[in-house]
Amino acid sequence: MSTANTETMAGLRKPAPADAGLHELIRERWSPRAFSGAPVPRALLDSLVEAARWAPSCMNEQPWSFVLADRYADPEGYARLESALMEGNRVWAGRAPVLGIVVARLAFTRDGAPNRWALYDTGQAVAQLALQAVAAGLRVHQMGGFDADKARRLLGIPEGYEPVAALAVGYPGDARELSPELLARELAPRQRRPAGEWVHGSRWGGAWAPAAGGAVSET
Amino acid sequence: MSTANTETMAGLRKPAPADAGLHELIRERWSPRAFSGAPVPRALLDSLVEAARWAPSCMNEQPWSFVLADRYADPEGYARLESALMEGNRVWAGRAPVLGIVVARLAFTRDGAPNRWALYDTGQAVAQLALQAVAAGLRVHQMGGFDADKARRLLGIPEGYEPVAALAVGYPGDARELSPELLARELAPRQRRPAGEWVHGSRWGGAWAPAAGGAVSET
Repeated sequence: MSTANTETMAGLRKPAPADAGLHELIRERWSPRAFSGAPVPRALLDSLVEAARWAPSCMNEQPWSFVLADRYADPEGYARLESALMEGNRVWAGRAPVLGIVVARLAFTRDGAPNRWALYDTGQAVAQLALQAVAAGLRVHQMGGFDADKARRLLGIPEGYEPVAALAVGYPGDARELSPELLARELAPRQRRPAGEWVHGSRWGGAWAPAAGGAVSET
Repeated sequence: MSTANTETMAGLRKPAPADAGLHELIRERWSPRAFSGAPVPRALLDSLVEAARWAPSCMNEQPWSFVLADRYADPEGYARLESALMEGNRVWAGRAPVLGIVVARLAFTRDGAPNRWALYDTGQAVAQLALQAVAAGLRVHQMGGFDADKARRLLGIPEGYEPVAALAVGYPGDARELSPELLARELAPRQRRPAGEWVHGSRWGGAWAPAAGGAVSET
């Protein structure tokens, strides 16, 4: 298993140390803390939105909403979103030119019944957005560390809609501009649980090793 | 806006009728009902698992688990998963060579506290799996229509883990083998809400049309 924290410090790549076969877009996606302050062209932001838009969802409900703020287009709006971030995230995310709050509608539009896939499907939309960002040369860092109540109040998010995550969006920046502590986290190898811990064959706890042979990769 | 239900009926493509700039992998992903019964090589299934594995998650919790069954490797296990599908899905999903149940662990491993991103992050993992499937020439159709209690019982899914979605995985099949009703749904244009309905600029209800210009695409 190689952990390729190579490349220049600006635009640090941290490809997943995964077996051959993983698509480049998925391999190259990661969540940096070092963002360039460079503005993001509107057409690229639109392509990110479009990628989210075409995600699948239960009954095609599309329960996701985004509140987005571009520092260059609306500094006050950007400051509003920034102020909802936890301090530990604000120090690095506040350099990204675009911030977002991801919101899930909790009930089905058609009948008001609870949508138990609201968060699940919203996650799918943001996953597509984050991969499209890689295609556009951008990076997305999602954060659970924001004040959802404050975001709701400051942004006017209505009842029935849940602020789920915050987003920082921008071009990769120079990791050397991070604090020593953040730099260490930026350079740390990426880690995941071995697939064998969470892929089950045919029943919970069943080995996922059918006749076709070959163990689940644990790289 | 073009709705390209073209190509041959076997391996029907339904690319998202989206603006230029959307990455091919995202554009080509869709959820067909026509699956070929052809077996899926284990290496490709492993690449799907690997794509899920490298998804981001809050605190790197990786709350997702999958129960997978390959009809050719374990017909009994496959039948168990198949029996948890709603009848309306079983008629087409039961032709796919691989079925899965997606499961989310609801509490953080480190301290047992509720993980409010459990479903959100699990959705991200499956979104990456579904896009890797496109790269592998496969398709994934996710289903909310399964009996979660039955899946829990038949598969032995423990308390604290929630069965969220079912998956059908396989090569694209011949849509002409579907019932007339399913064929009509298979051929229907793909639709999504205009981004202008759910992308908000800087606050809820704010127009997402900053200075950089250009309206959000509604194609």
